[in-house]
Amino acid sequence: MSDQLEHTTDQVDLESVLEAAASVAAGVARAVPSERAGWLRAIADELDGERDALVQLAQQETRLTQGRLVGELGRTTFQLRLTAHALEEGSWLEATIDHADPDWPTGPRPDLRRMLRGVGPVLVVAASNFPFAFSVAGGDTATALGAGCPVVLKAHPGHPQLSRRTAELVQHALRKAGAPEGVFALIEGESETQQALKDPRIKAGSFTGSVRGGRALFDIAASRPDPIPFYGELGSVNPAFVLPSAIERRRAEVLEGFVGSFTLGAGQFCTKPGVLFVPKTDGLLDELRELVSAVAPAPMLNDRMVSGLQDRLEQMRRQWTVVRDAEADDAGLPPALFATSGSAAMEDLDSLFEEAFGAAAVVVEYDDPAELVEIASQLPGQLTATVQAEEDDGIAPALLDVLSDHAGRILWNGWPTGVSVTWAMQHGGPWPATTASLHTSVGPTALRRFLQPVAFQNLPAAMLPAAVRDDNPLRIWQRVDGKLTSPEEVG
Amino acid sequence: MSDQLEHTTDQVDLESVLEAAASVAAGVARAVPSERAGWLRAIADELDGERDALVQLAQQETRLTQGRLVGELGRTTFQLRLTAHALEEGSWLEATIDHADPDWPTGPRPDLRRMLRGVGPVLVVAASNFPFAFSVAGGDTATALGAGCPVVLKAHPGHPQLSRRTAELVQHALRKAGAPEGVFALIEGESETQQALKDPRIKAGSFTGSVRGGRALFDIAASRPDPIPFYGELGSVNPAFVLPSAIERRRAEVLEGFVGSFTLGAGQFCTKPGVLFVPKTDGLLDELRELVSAVAPAPMLNDRMVSGLQDRLEQMRRQWTVVRDAEADDAGLPPALFATSGSAAMEDLDSLFEEAFGAAAVVVEYDDPAELVEIASQLPGQLTATVQAEEDDGIAPALLDVLSDHAGRILWNGWPTGVSVTWAMQHGGPWPATTASLHTSVGPTALRRFLQPVAFQNLPAAMLPAAVRDDNPLRIWQRVDGKLTSPEEVG
Repeated sequence: MSDQLEHTTDQVDLESVLEAAASVAAGVARAVPSERAGWLRAIADELDGERDALVQLAQQETRLTQGRLVGELGRTTFQLRLTAHALEEGSWLEATIDHADPDWPTGPRPDLRRMLRGVGPVLVVAASNFPFAFSVAGGDTATALGAGCPVVLKAHPGHPQLSRRTAELVQHALRKAGAPEGVFALIEGESETQQALKDPRIKAGSFTGSVRGGRALFDIAASRPDPIPFYGELGSVNPAFVLPSAIERRRAEVLEGFVGSFTLGAGQFCTKPGVLFVPKTDGLLDELRELVSAVAPAPMLNDRMVSGLQDRLEQMRRQWTVVRDAEADDAGLPPALFATSGSAAMEDLDSLFEEAFGAAAVVVEYDDPAELVEIASQLPGQLTATVQAEEDDGIAPALLDVLSDHAGRILWNGWPTGVSVTWAMQHGGPWPATTASLHTSVGPTALRRFLQPVAFQNLPAAMLPAAVRDDNPLRIWQRVDGKLTSPEEVG
Repeated sequence: MSDQLEHTTDQVDLESVLEAAASVAAGVARAVPSERAGWLRAIADELDGERDALVQLAQQETRLTQGRLVGELGRTTFQLRLTAHALEEGSWLEATIDHADPDWPTGPRPDLRRMLRGVGPVLVVAASNFPFAFSVAGGDTATALGAGCPVVLKAHPGHPQLSRRTAELVQHALRKAGAPEGVFALIEGESETQQALKDPRIKAGSFTGSVRGGRALFDIAASRPDPIPFYGELGSVNPAFVLPSAIERRRAEVLEGFVGSFTLGAGQFCTKPGVLFVPKTDGLLDELRELVSAVAPAPMLNDRMVSGLQDRLEQMRRQWTVVRDAEADDAGLPPALFATSGSAAMEDLDSLFEEAFGAAAVVVEYDDPAELVEIASQLPGQLTATVQAEEDDGIAPALLDVLSDHAGRILWNGWPTGVSVTWAMQHGGPWPATTASLHTSVGPTALRRFLQPVAFQNLPAAMLPAAVRDDNPLRIWQRVDGKLTSPEEVG
């Protein structure tokens, strides 16, 4: 699949996609939020209606299991509907009204009204590892469209048929729901992606994938004559720090949890825990070996992933002690586990914190938990960091404190591979977890990536956007003269 | 002044500044917001207490009038206090609590709590044209410190003594208020600024100044091994579009308003209206000439500004018809005004929309107001755009609509040179108005530039930051299980 030559969008088509996106952008940005919410729900309904056929296509192209794909499609339509719900709730608009005030301390204040509005057409570069949830109709598409931005979607070559079919369904749903033609289009091809990203009609970009690929696109976005924001979700090793108290009291549970998490879905999650810090303990590596050996090999998404992991495994074998490392069979690569000491790890943290995409991990056996705070303070940006400990463990508060400057999500006694789609989710983190640490790519607040503020000074009431009118026709939260005001508080 | 060799911070001092900022960053980010609010109020009080001496110093170094400087200092201490007020109100923290929910549609949801927290040390590069409000203790310092970020402040060489004195007062106030040593420091020098911006201990940058200077710093920030956000407020011509209805009914008021605005403060405001579109009207240029001639020459900030403006005037003389352009005298450069036709302007919009920093502007006489919508659609990003019209003017809604995609603030029958410090202010805009169109540099929401989200999953209650605890000890707004909840609603 990815070994085949990638299909590319021809120049005439690319031009018409970009032109259509630009020509409808203003109308899309100005559609009332409930209208765009209707578009997202229509897409969700359309996908749900074609569930079996989509899952079948995805199975053919990605080697993922039916159960996993059914779950992922459900998550995808849920996040479309949650975004729709958030659109109607309206606080994301940050609608703010400051009435004229002749006595304002810095001099007479004019009538000022501020709100957020879509930035314009967004190039969304789809991921390989979530063919639904981070692909054609995934979270970036949901939040960009929701924010009022036309979407130019770059299909991932790992699942081209599924991408095209999903795009057809998205377009069909949008048409039925009354959205303008051109608000969503699919493109294919590497150089076409770069061309689109350089095009002045594209106003923001988003991406989920490797550090190398994401950095290259980020550099293009930043070096344009008119730089644009680029939201890349890149690499993460998602370290887990097991404190002595956890090993003492929940040893089996912790080790089983770790092995389950790093091998889940052939280790192809952005949040796979790739490094486990444990206190040096007799027999612990043997137990881990036994647990890992019991996990059946699972196929990876495509052959490129397999060869990428094999290259990384070669490095890992040279650098660390093998705990478990078996030959691939017809079913795929078995999970691999390596080990090293805390002091050896400290000597080359760069290697330790380099992602291995797939079911491979490193166990670091430390002598003194105090070392962990020092290591954590040197951690490059992560999507997640996990602490396993009992509440009375003395080192836990300091460790949590340091980690929360280095990771987007901090877990206590859990494993990071589940990413709940909800208001309080943060899926992001400092570089290299992402190219934009101020944002998340999961959850309704991901809308903020595609919105810019505009203020209106002394506009006649009839010319104001609905979001910032005194009579609050959208029934949304507004900040009025400094005070957050619920829609129920307005007459 | 700016002709003198710029003083530079030596390497030992720069290293100790950066190291101190990094070492206190975590503590500053975790200080409760009311504590940091106290720091900002202490700075405001300190500056107010030294008002006369500071204004006197500023007069010596900037050639600005006493009245202007007294007003600007008042604005500066007000924005420190407004930021402090916003810190305590707390909605900026985006505190979000999702309790565990076994029935969540995408599978059991863990307990998740999300909030924003300071990104770490910020390099603030001060502006020349507001020696108080956009300088050492200006808006960027207020919002970066308020957000919980140590500030490394690069002094503008146009007012070095004032910068050093202000920094002393800031540090004295911070010390008295109990802030840690190292949370604020002043540096000087161009190459030292670049060095600091490249340093991994600096996590964000901000700047107010020219497109050229801002772009160079933006490129440094974006090309770091670990790219960081860089908030540059750069150039803007702030076009004003006068529709026929306004000229017919309020001709004198409009022309006087424009001349007053573009010549205010020797034209040295970011929001100076540099281009005026007016319907071609007999005698109108003569009236403008008379109004401009009546404005006394005023001194510019420093000799570098004068020579920059003279270079730009040379270009303007070659390109456009002179309406008024007199020789400089001892008092300074008199305001200059040029004119062109709508069709000629359309042929070289790049030149038309290039900023002239100082009291110089271009009048574009158009034949048909419908041309304006076309011109507006090609407008590069602006801090402001103004429409002067009567409410029944047919072209106004379409023009406002297009402009609101190209400017951060849209004014109706006003002039852009006043920038009120208030919740609904937007001081920003698409490139090249700024390097980051998602944000503002004026008003409390400017805090968002220096904040990144962090989520906590299943943390024991005792280890949670105060902002996301169920008992809401900070008494702030929280989003609880999806619903925005006022502090009054909690027991």
